[in-house]
Amino acid sequence: MNGICLLFQGATDWLGKDDEPLTGFSWRGGSERETTGIWAWNKLFICEIVEGEEIAVMLLDTQGAFDTESTVKDCATVFALSTMVSSVQTFNLSQNIQEDDLHHLQLFTEYGRLALEKEEVKEKPFQCLLFLVRDWSYPYEYAYGEAGGQLILDRKLDDTRSRHEELQEVRKHIRSCFEKISCFLMPHPGLAVARQKEYDGRLADIDSEFQDYLKVLAPMLLAPSNLIVKSINGSHVRCKDLLEYFKAYVNIYQNSELPEPKTMLRATSEANNLAAVALALDQYNTEMDKVCGGDKPYIGPEELENNHHMILAASLKTFDVTPKMGGLEFSDTYKENLIKDIEDRHAHYEKNNESKNLFNVAR
Amino acid sequence: MNGICLLFQGATDWLGKDDEPLTGFSWRGGSERETTGIWAWNKLFICEIVEGEEIAVMLLDTQGAFDTESTVKDCATVFALSTMVSSVQTFNLSQNIQEDDLHHLQLFTEYGRLALEKEEVKEKPFQCLLFLVRDWSYPYEYAYGEAGGQLILDRKLDDTRSRHEELQEVRKHIRSCFEKISCFLMPHPGLAVARQKEYDGRLADIDSEFQDYLKVLAPMLLAPSNLIVKSINGSHVRCKDLLEYFKAYVNIYQNSELPEPKTMLRATSEANNLAAVALALDQYNTEMDKVCGGDKPYIGPEELENNHHMILAASLKTFDVTPKMGGLEFSDTYKENLIKDIEDRHAHYEKNNESKNLFNVAR
Ligand SMILES: Nc1nc2c(ncn2[C@@H]2O[C@H](COP(=O)(O)OP(=O)(O)O)[C@@H](O)[C@H]2O)c(=O)[nH]1
Ligand SMILES: Nc1nc2c(ncn2[C@@H]2O[C@H](COP(=O)(O)OP(=O)(O)O)[C@@H](O)[C@H]2O)c(=O)[nH]1
Ligand SMILES: [Mg+2]
Ligand SMILES: [Mg+2]
Repeated sequence: MNGICLLFQGATDWLGKDDEPLTGFSWRGGSERETTGIWAWNKLFICEIVEGEEIAVMLLDTQGAFDTESTVKDCATVFALSTMVSSVQTFNLSQNIQEDDLHHLQLFTEYGRLALEKEEVKEKPFQCLLFLVRDWSYPYEYAYGEAGGQLILDRKLDDTRSRHEELQEVRKHIRSCFEKISCFLMPHPGLAVARQKEYDGRLADIDSEFQDYLKVLAPMLLAPSNLIVKSINGSHVRCKDLLEYFKAYVNIYQNSELPEPKTMLRATSEANNLAAVALALDQYNTEMDKVCGGDKPYIGPEELENNHHMILAASLKTFDVTPKMGGLEFSDTYKENLIKDIEDRHAHYEKNNESKNLFNVAR
Repeated sequence: MNGICLLFQGATDWLGKDDEPLTGFSWRGGSERETTGIWAWNKLFICEIVEGEEIAVMLLDTQGAFDTESTVKDCATVFALSTMVSSVQTFNLSQNIQEDDLHHLQLFTEYGRLALEKEEVKEKPFQCLLFLVRDWSYPYEYAYGEAGGQLILDRKLDDTRSRHEELQEVRKHIRSCFEKISCFLMPHPGLAVARQKEYDGRLADIDSEFQDYLKVLAPMLLAPSNLIVKSINGSHVRCKDLLEYFKAYVNIYQNSELPEPKTMLRATSEANNLAAVALALDQYNTEMDKVCGGDKPYIGPEELENNHHMILAASLKTFDVTPKMGGLEFSDTYKENLIKDIEDRHAHYEKNNESKNLFNVAR
């Protein structure tokens, strides 16, 4: 973090000495996650962006998405919260921009937007997004750094090319969420760094190419022109407001009835089962209307009962044979709800039928 | 592919010469995909697994998941089809086993299982799955190769540890799909290989550690004990059957009403909107029953109409304020359907009410 201070002071030796271990946010090599949740550096950096106008810069570090301890909701919440309070969000990717990365980004930003929705924001809800592609291996196709990043971004995020509607939709959504999107292609730090158990972050072991681009990336991120003042709903945010916003957002995610982000299979299974329930219920209503709807005469309770049983069975059959993801156990709950809904409708048809009974009516 | 023949013949120099370009399935470096769809090698390899019993080995190569040209359905179909016709499926991962990799695997295998469902398979639908983790960087935690792979697999796929229910569910599902799951940790082939534009696949440029583990992996995959005869529904499959199965499966995915795998946001949005429609429709029915249900007396058409309008508005309000992912445009279609459903119910209540009109009844 010393480096950051030096950077702000315009020093060129901010990277520190070759044999100094790396300090700052806690970090560690290995296959298990180190950072959890969202961490803020315990010191603000005060900078002059234009003559006489000072702003405070706050640095946040978050956990990565999809470590094998977190649920989709955990990941979405960390990403959404950090995006909501940041003016510049860095999205770290490994090796390339892949379609699933875009899917995650789309879900996470939508989850953020959901918590803001009350205010009916018409502008783009978030400010800057930086795709930071690590271990970029194709500098002969797109050069390391920002220019190559821009080219690949234009290619990967292009929503005008003749792509499938699904791919276009993802791209339109992401573009609609951020005022500015950029990309930086970072070289591999070298296998020594990636593999060494005892590696302490010292510069000496990092590939010089990586160091070169670090010297481009960090000053770029912290350049006065890129130090964008955080704004929420179109107005600039002061430090003390930020804490209040943060608390409010956390509250929304904790208490509200916001829909939960879930695994792909779970979300698909829910949609499949809800659609099958609606289909079966509609079938029950339509068929029962033919037997004892409003424009049908009174029928004997036994006849109604017989028809109910036949139509119930046919509707449940429709539910059963409609292909659904998620398996039998999962759909059992939905089937139980369907049966309950049908029983409600059944009671309703019984009452309606009774009300047509001349004997009752005349009483 | 020459190497494969030599391997089957028990030769040790199957890897070929140091300065030979790599042949076989088409491949190429770069940030854009090369392989699309599923490719089968145009020659079968005949092997004796036990004395006197010969089997034919078929090699398949597929496109990777989530290149930026394919939809989720494309990826799921390629993975599902190749898993359905394979006795050993290799799932290539980069650097680590991440939770999102497991989510994809879960969705893809479920999509495969869906196409098999007709036969009501009770056993596990697929045979062997190999997680092949590339560029493994933590040999000091888990050693390269199969043993280290087994350890990390036990850790990452453990469904007994106190994990969140969602994480357990994903793991149970994956375990329930495959008879055997293993994992192999592969070292990085070296940055020269990954980065060189003109790299032609020659051995000389590949890190010797990578070559060492290739010499473990390939013989392991092709060892007689690992050459598992493909079985579908519990019976062994012959070559000529396989083609028929493949055609049948493709047909199922092309023609049927199988639910479509979609992006996380799309699936979540559908589930959210369907649930909101069901909630609003239920509210309409419940409130209208209170006004003109079967056990309520006849009311004037105007009174019914007024109540309908109030209750319709309240139900649409419920739909609107229920938090849903996917945005307004997406939910408009669902809202239109809701209004149509409510109009159907409205007509039904009108008829029912009319049938209670003593004047009509007595006529
Ligand atoms: N291959 C590669 N590894 C990196 C890079 N940057 C950091 N690492 C490694 O990634 C691991 C931890 O990353 P980090 O972002 O701190 O994740 P966390 O531990 O979950 O907070 C360590 O093993 C680092 O050595 C990079 O650009 N390329
Ligand atoms: N980092 C790394 N790259 C690899 C490895 N194996 C292959 N590659 C690179 O991956 C790219 C293409 O991989 P491939 O599986 O053929 O994908 P396809 O082009 O979509 O069929 C090429 O650039 C290869 O050099 C590996 O183990 N590690
Ligand atoms: Mg970290
Ligand atoms: Mg390929």
